[in-house]
Formats: sequence, C-alpha cells, structure tokens
Amino acid sequence: MKDFKNRDILSGKDFERDEIDYILEIGKKMGNNEYPKILDGKILATLFFEPSTRTRLSFESAMLRLGGKVVGFQSRDVSSIKKGETIADTIRTVQNYSDIIVMRHSLEGVDRMAAKFSTVPVINAGSGPSEHPTQGLLDLLTIKEECGTIDGLNIGLCGDLKYGRTVHSLSYLLCNYEVNLYFISPDSLKMRARVVDWLRKKQLKFKETEKFRDILPLLDVLYMTRIQAERFVDKEEYEKVKGVYIFRKKDLTETRDNFRLMHPLPRIDEISTSVDDSKKAIYFKQAKYGMYLRMALLGLVLKGNDFMRNL
Amino acid sequence: MKDFKNRDILSGKDFERDEIDYILEIGKKMGNNEYPKILDGKILATLFFEPSTRTRLSFESAMLRLGGKVVGFQSRDVSSIKKGETIADTIRTVQNYSDIIVMRHSLEGVDRMAAKFSTVPVINAGSGPSEHPTQGLLDLLTIKEECGTIDGLNIGLCGDLKYGRTVHSLSYLLCNYEVNLYFISPDSLKMRARVVDWLRKKQLKFKETEKFRDILPLLDVLYMTRIQAERFVDKEEYEKVKGVYIFRKKDLTETRDNFRLMHPLPRIDEISTSVDDSKKAIYFKQAKYGMYLRMALLGLVLKGNDFMRNL
Amino acid sequence: MKDFKNRDILSGKDFERDEIDYILEIGKKMGNNEYPKILDGKILATLFFEPSTRTRLSFESAMLRLGGKVVGFQSRDVSSIKKGETIADTIRTVQNYSDIIVMRHSLEGVDRMAAKFSTVPVINAGSGPSEHPTQGLLDLLTIKEECGTIDGLNIGLCGDLKYGRTVHSLSYLLCNYEVNLYFISPDSLKMRARVVDWLRKKQLKFKETEKFRDILPLLDVLYMTRIQAERFVDKEEYEKVKGVYIFRKKDLTETRDNFRLMHPLPRIDEISTSVDDSKKAIYFKQAKYGMYLRMALLGLVLKGNDFMRNL
Repeated sequence: MKDFKNRDILSGKDFERDEIDYILEIGKKMGNNEYPKILDGKILATLFFEPSTRTRLSFESAMLRLGGKVVGFQSRDVSSIKKGETIADTIRTVQNYSDIIVMRHSLEGVDRMAAKFSTVPVINAGSGPSEHPTQGLLDLLTIKEECGTIDGLNIGLCGDLKYGRTVHSLSYLLCNYEVNLYFISPDSLKMRARVVDWLRKKQLKFKETEKFRDILPLLDVLYMTRIQAERFVDKEEYEKVKGVYIFRKKDLTETRDNFRLMHPLPRIDEISTSVDDSKKAIYFKQAKYGMYLRMALLGLVLKGNDFMRNL
Repeated sequence: MKDFKNRDILSGKDFERDEIDYILEIGKKMGNNEYPKILDGKILATLFFEPSTRTRLSFESAMLRLGGKVVGFQSRDVSSIKKGETIADTIRTVQNYSDIIVMRHSLEGVDRMAAKFSTVPVINAGSGPSEHPTQGLLDLLTIKEECGTIDGLNIGLCGDLKYGRTVHSLSYLLCNYEVNLYFISPDSLKMRARVVDWLRKKQLKFKETEKFRDILPLLDVLYMTRIQAERFVDKEEYEKVKGVYIFRKKDLTETRDNFRLMHPLPRIDEISTSVDDSKKAIYFKQAKYGMYLRMALLGLVLKGNDFMRNL
Repeated sequence: MKDFKNRDILSGKDFERDEIDYILEIGKKMGNNEYPKILDGKILATLFFEPSTRTRLSFESAMLRLGGKVVGFQSRDVSSIKKGETIADTIRTVQNYSDIIVMRHSLEGVDRMAAKFSTVPVINAGSGPSEHPTQGLLDLLTIKEECGTIDGLNIGLCGDLKYGRTVHSLSYLLCNYEVNLYFISPDSLKMRARVVDWLRKKQLKFKETEKFRDILPLLDVLYMTRIQAERFVDKEEYEKVKGVYIFRKKDLTETRDNFRLMHPLPRIDEISTSVDDSKKAIYFKQAKYGMYLRMALLGLVLKGNDFMRNL
C-alpha cells in the first residue's frame, strides 16, 4: 500500500480497497482511544469559501484533539480573494503558514488546481457539485461500524444525484466493495453521466429508479440527500414529486430489522424529525464518525501510515 | 450545593444563593492566580448567530487560558443554518466535536431547546431580548469585588428594561440578595412583566421611576444600558426623553463617595466619555471580571465543584 | 538600543537602523531554527476590520508556532462595532482578554488611537491608505536575505504610490539605508507629499518617473503594487496607462542578473503569471519571510530583546 504521507485527498476515485480499509481501521481506533497528541507543532489551514458546520468544525476539532493547531477563514469575504486574488496565489501564500490545507470551494476543479500549486498536501472538503471525498469515507466508516460490513449490502442513494457531491464520492468509493447500488431520483436529477461511466468501467452493479418506497424492503442502507427546489427546471414537476423524496416515520415499518437510514446533513425536510429517535436513524452518528475519520486522515497524511504504531 | 458538573447555564433564575456565592468566589480566585491548565484536552464550541465582542472573546480567552481549545463560528452566514438546517440538528452535530457549547441567538428560547437536544452542557451567551445569565453573574462579581458587598446596596437599573437581556438576568440573580432595586426607564420600556412577577414572588424590593437624576444621591450602583431609538413606538417621545438617559460628568457630583457606575457595553452615548476616567466608572473593569467569571464557569461545568481543590 | 518589550509597532518612521537590523537578524533566525514555544500562555487578539489573507494568517501562524494562542475577529460585522461601539471602547475591552493586539482598519490614525487607549502593545497591520509597517519590515528581510544586502541597491517602487500603504512604510524604513529609490507612478498617483517630505528631511535619494521600463536595466529590485482603476479621477487616463504598469515575461530580459521582482500581494494583473517561475520573482518568498518576521516581532514585543538568548 502506498504511504499516505503528503498525499492530496481530492476524489473518491483516488483510493484502492486496501487503502480505504486501512483508513477505516485507523478511524475506528480513533474513536476507541484517548487522543494522542501526535500532531503537536503542526498547523492546519481551513479555507472555506462556502458555508460549513460539520466539515469545518469536525476537521478543526480533529486537528486540535491530535495536538495540532488551526488557522483559516470561514468565508470568502474576509480573505484577499475579495480583492481579486486568484486561488493559485492564495494557495502559494497559505502553504507558507501551514502544514496542510483543507479547502471548500463552489467551483469544480479548484481543489485539483490548488493541489497542483501547493507544496503542502490539500484535502478537498467539497468542490462545488462534484465531490466531497472525506464525506464519502466517513459514510463508509459509519456503514462498516453500524452494519458490521460493507460487502454484500443493498445500498440506496436517494435525492439529488446530479448535483449532490456526497453521493458522487460515495459511489466512487463503493466501487471497491461488493454492493448492490440503487440510485433513486427524479429523472432530471439522475446520477451524473461521468459517475455512471466510472461505475460501469469498474463493473459495480447498480439500478436506477424514481421512488425509494418501491425498493425499501430490499435495502440495508438508504442514504437520503437534499433536493433543492431550485434544481428543478420545471417547478410543477418539483411540486409533484417532492413528497416522494421525504422519509416518514411510517416508512420505517417497511424496512428490514438491520436497515439503517443515513444523511450527510444538513437536512431540510427529506427526513421527518419523528424518525430521529429510531435506532435505524444513524445520521447524527455519521457526524461523529466524521471527526474520527478526519483524525485518521490528518494523522495519515501528516505522519504517514505508521503514525499509530508507537501509541 | 448541587454539583455544577455538566449543568446547563441558561437563566439567572436557575441559581441558589450559595451557588452564586461559590461561582463568585471561584471567579475571584481566577483573577488572583496563575491560570492552571485544567481544561487541557477539552474543546469549547462557540456558536454565535449574533455579533459579539466581549462575550465571545472573553469565553474563548477564558478557555484558552485554562489550557482548553476552541472551535466555532462567528456568524450565522458561515454555518449550515444558512442552508436551512435547524438549530436542533446543528446542536446534535456540534456536540460530537466539543465538550461544551456556548451559544448566542436572536430568538428567545433557542438556548433551552439547544440544551434539550445537547448531550454536552450548553451555556446561554445571550438569547434574544430575554436573558444573558453569564453577564448577570459577571455583574455580580464586579459589584462584590468593587463595592465589597452585594447585600444592603441600592442598585439602579436604567435604560431599556423591556428588551435589555442583561438587566433581566441581573434582576433574577439579585433576588438572592438583600438589595433595593430601582428600575429607571421611559414608560414604554418598563421592566417586562414576567421579570416583575418573579421579583414579587421572590419578595425583592423594587421601585420604578423615569429619571435617574431624581434618585442618584441614593444609589450605590447605577447600571446603565443602551436605549435603541427604534424601540420607541413614538419617535417624538424618543427625542423628548433621550437626554434623560445620558449620564454626564457633572452627574458624578450628585453621587455618593462609594457610588459605582456600570454598563454591560457596548455603549453608544448613554455615558459620556468624559466620565471614563473617574474611579467611579467601572464598566471596563466589568469586561475584565467577565473573563474571570467565565473561567470559573467553564471550570465548574467541565470539571465539577472541586476543580480548584488540587491547585 | 531600546528594548522592544511592550512597544507599539505603528509606523515605519518609528525605527532606528540598529533596531531594524536586529529585527531582521531575529527574523532570519526564526527561519533557520525549530520554533521554540516561548509564547506559551500568551494570547494574541487579531482585530481585522478589513479583509486579509497574508497578514492575519501569518500573524496567527507565527503566534501558534511560538506556543501562543489566538482570539479575534475576521470581519467588522461580527463584532460590537456593528452595534455602534467605538474603537476606543473595543480596545479597552479586548486588552483584558489578550497580551497583544494586531489590528487592521480602513481609517488612517485608528492604529495610533488604539495604541493610546490600550494597556497592551498594539501592532498596526494596515491603517487605511497610510501605513503597513510589518509589511515594510518583511520586505526588508526579503531584500536582505535574497539580495545579500540592502545598502547600495537601486530600488524601484511602482504603481499606486499615493494610496498604497505598503510603499509608504517601506520608504520610511529605507531612510535608514544607503539606497537609491525610484518612484514609478502615473502623475495622479505620485508618492504622497508627507512621505516625500520625510525622505527629504532624512536626505534619502529618490527620483520620480512614470514608466518602469525606462529605468529597468538600472534596478536591483522592482517592487510592484496594485493600481486600482477606481483610484483614477479620469477613466480615460487609466485606460491609456494601465499597460505601462504590467510587468511581463519579456521585461525580464531587460533586467540585471541579480534583479529581483517583489510584490506585497494580492496581485491582480500587475505581474503576468508567466513571470512566476523565474528565479527573479520572489513575491511568494516574501509571503514566507512575512511569517518569520512576525514571529520575530511577537517575540521581541512580548518577551523583550533577549528572548532568543536562552534558546
């Protein structure tokens, strides 16, 4: 396995199975142990050009718990980008002040350009509608720990599969496992072609459908995502279909005993709050696994694969 | 006395006298000692949905001085609240990344809802026009240290008593002491009914009046607050009364030797800057006591009542 | 030499030559050594009322690398300034929560007023169009390290010399060295009178010209700055001259072997990106020297001139 030290984390496509399994193993350990201060003296720069609660705070908390420190900005408007500076120049500046950069930007491809210019590793924390690989990894950690396995599961991804960056990264990552995927979306928000092409190349089995209720009894995992009204070209179509993409408490009765309901959050109304108390609802646990997963990634990228060896 | 460990700090009504006295005693010690790093390994999340200078910075500085660390956001707009996430979901996320949450929000009651959902303790750092209990506690610490006592004092609260959250929390807290309160405000901004009802129930003596100058010679403490022009229904009334609510240098001559002038800040023009140099003006000292008080609270809530025992 | 301990850093005019040389010597050492945690227990407050990437992040990173901690705000809108508080009151508050204040503000003179009110040292991180002394110091550190000397050099300052705060502070600082200065700007953006007067008083040699290409073969250092279109009274003049203030790759052929091209950044289009790879382009190195220089300043002001003695 290649060493993670100094690797950029940009896409769900960048990982082999043994690498993912290793990240998940370290992530699990992070949740079970006292936090060792292995990143003492290291500085993380968080460059968030789009709003974030979970991703930024969990990365920052992960860094702090491992003994590292954080600088950064929470909004485009407080940076020199506001004065017209390019991302390339911003990166070539910030790399001088930090040992690793975590970046979120509304434009696809900016993460890759940043990595090209940066002398320190770059982690993509959301690149427009394209990818969000650390979310995909934490989703896998959640599935592994809560379902006991990833292989063999029937997993449904539901909602806006065209613009939802989390489902893209998760799909890429799942190509390394033996799963049956179900893509559930309105016709106008179907899984984007480039992801579908990749899955076909990797021979991952998937089916496309419009309604999760038709296949709910089959599923081990249903991963809901936000559908934003403004994504619909035809507003009438939105009004017609939106109820189809809300998971309600009574839907739980149609699910398997081992069924688990996930969501990358934020949720608007795709999952009724009356579902929250069910043991099948694990979306808040996902948020917690996110911190452990990010601790694992920061340790691996800054210290290399053996960083837990001497703990 | 109940242990403070893991208690939420939401309202001035939530404290018994011995509890307040104990907090003030610890706060005083914090000002007199080297800062012990007792909160090493702990993380504070500061969630500020409204602007703040004193409260956020003093909480963060308090946490850092005790060896802890901080994550958070300074504005609603950089969080997922901007994407439509509820406060409940935000709290259930952030509790995974932190050991304690300090929150300011423009809506009354959000603090209590947050505490209900949170598995980690929540401190209310300002809940709309309703309460600001840590401000009330630091006001008491200031009075205790600068006047030598709280019992027996004549204390005037002046300005916007209807929407001013600091005077509400302070009034609730003062129910535990033997004081004479004077509520000084225009008729349309009188102390809100629910506070008055509570004081009556607690048998705290208070009088209501419209002009501080009428009672100034009686007062040991005058606590000024901002009156915002937009609070007045009748703009003409505002123009008529506003001069009545400005404390000027010459007013000092009417005050007792031991008189002290307080203000939660920010001040606009309620106190003339020519008063600032008087030893009777203690509003900037208040800001300093605020840090010590918040160190005491963070220590008590995170470590329990005995946290100073082994120092 | 006067001790730097507790000194405010407000203007390029405030330094003697031996003081600057000492700062540069410490700055160089900071770049060559492991970072010692000499500022453990100290807190820096960064008060940025204008956007910043380099200055804020390099100050914060400098503080963290030396073992200190940081509180602050990244934007005016999240502070009580938004509620109408004065800078004087903000400073008298924040000084209670920090050991040193770094401030950027759009108005000239605010830095000096802040220093007057503050009981802790204040560092000016940009005061409107007036000064930016720590930028001037890092520019000198860059020249010293990259050119081997400051004395004897021909240095061109090009662009908006009227409103560009960095060139003002740098000019003041250069009065302590034997250099030939060339001020290159359109007539309407000539070096401001108060700077020119100071240079004359200090007998620093300078010439004024409109085009850098005329003198390029003479120069050891060319320091480019942004020209903002909106600074021109006459938009037609701007359209006429703007090409004259862009450094292009072919311009390199006219320069000396030891020529170095600098820029305080952010750059918009004053330097073509095709120049970036030249070893003569040192503007990204400048950003790195900025962190070392600020580590030196924080150490000197918080710990005094001997702070490196025991390392």
